[in-house]
Amino acid sequence: MSTEKSFAKGSAAPGPVPDGKIRLYSMRFCPFAQRTRLVLAAKGIKHETMNINLKDKPEWFLEKNPLGLVPTLENPSGEVVYDSPITCEYLEEVYPEKKLLPPSPFGKAQQKMMLEHFSKVVPYFYKIPMGRKNGEDVSALEGELKEKFAKLNEDLVNKKTGFFGGNSITMIDYMMWPWFERLELMELKHCLGGTPELKKWTERMTEDAAVKACMHSAETYKAFYKSYQEGKPDYDYGL
Amino acid sequence: MSTEKSFAKGSAAPGPVPDGKIRLYSMRFCPFAQRTRLVLAAKGIKHETMNINLKDKPEWFLEKNPLGLVPTLENPSGEVVYDSPITCEYLEEVYPEKKLLPPSPFGKAQQKMMLEHFSKVVPYFYKIPMGRKNGEDVSALEGELKEKFAKLNEDLVNKKTGFFGGNSITMIDYMMWPWFERLELMELKHCLGGTPELKKWTERMTEDAAVKACMHSAETYKAFYKSYQEGKPDYDYGL
Repeated sequence: MSTEKSFAKGSAAPGPVPDGKIRLYSMRFCPFAQRTRLVLAAKGIKHETMNINLKDKPEWFLEKNPLGLVPTLENPSGEVVYDSPITCEYLEEVYPEKKLLPPSPFGKAQQKMMLEHFSKVVPYFYKIPMGRKNGEDVSALEGELKEKFAKLNEDLVNKKTGFFGGNSITMIDYMMWPWFERLELMELKHCLGGTPELKKWTERMTEDAAVKACMHSAETYKAFYKSYQEGKPDYDYGL
Repeated sequence: MSTEKSFAKGSAAPGPVPDGKIRLYSMRFCPFAQRTRLVLAAKGIKHETMNINLKDKPEWFLEKNPLGLVPTLENPSGEVVYDSPITCEYLEEVYPEKKLLPPSPFGKAQQKMMLEHFSKVVPYFYKIPMGRKNGEDVSALEGELKEKFAKLNEDLVNKKTGFFGGNSITMIDYMMWPWFERLELMELKHCLGGTPELKKWTERMTEDAAVKACMHSAETYKAFYKSYQEGKPDYDYGL
């Protein structure tokens, strides 16, 4: 289990999760799984990671999660939790050390509403590169993304805080971060041109220890992304 | 405020929410708003309701919630919460009486995963009637809906419980119910033919006091739905 290499169809099923640990089924370059990795890192939770070959999934993984998606968590009792926001809220509840959500019900609701808004931004990170690849004019989509960024920028300006949930990092920042980390890779960095507060937020984020711990080098991202776009994702690139 | 009639553009903005109450901005026939109405009723929360004309929204409502969607909650401090699952979790946290979510983090995660699955069922309740209206062959869509129902049925069979979260009603039952209440209206009742446990669940649900309190008569639903399909929704039908 001390390998980062991905497990594929035909691999032997792992044993139970050791007591005192939680297991994350992940994929090294998946932004959704990165949300859970960030929360595990930020809260300092003892865990082990098993990376899954998403093109050729192990049978035993599909038994644990019939949807076959990462992130998926498993605890020593064999309980399985999936879907990135659900895994992160689960970790927040089970591991009370270093709370990432505000204590008040309204504070929690605000974070969920921000996440719901952000879920409408995520598709642009896929639609624009896909459109470009197909030789389409993506300027309208880029315009829409810039508008979404302007709203996020306005939110930071109105709040007068360094992060989306206040003056320190909270859950919502980690939920949004993985896509901003890929801005350069997706050739979308210019979309931040008119949103200085949002740009400063991205700079602040890169200083966070959990963000640093979960990040790949630009070169590694590029190589994986190339293999992904060619239809042959190299899940083990760089290992 | 003691009217159920809907508020439209040009109406006077309401005053603050009275102390000790919460206000729901709703629409009498909206299944998403019904989720929140069910939770308010089940938990016996003191509240007032203001129905919104969704075709011609009041300016003051758009100021409170720029998305202009129901359900939206407002508390006496002027804090605003929207998006149906977020409003329901908020109510669950603020009003601890009669808990609708299980106490354990895994129990809560299970309810969220079930809700996530169910969110993939909801579109069928719109796509099938729409397709029929346009004279399309909807048999494939009906087949897919029946498969989704079969999964829900299997879930009840495996759990050997009367409801989706155990032997009494919990949050997930209320989150799913509004669409089942409209099965006859949507001419989809035959899709329950091969799923006896799910059918029994719908029968059990109609015996619940909160479900009864939030229900309209078949005749009222039909009249509203007709006006809705004709593009002139009569939000005040029957008042």
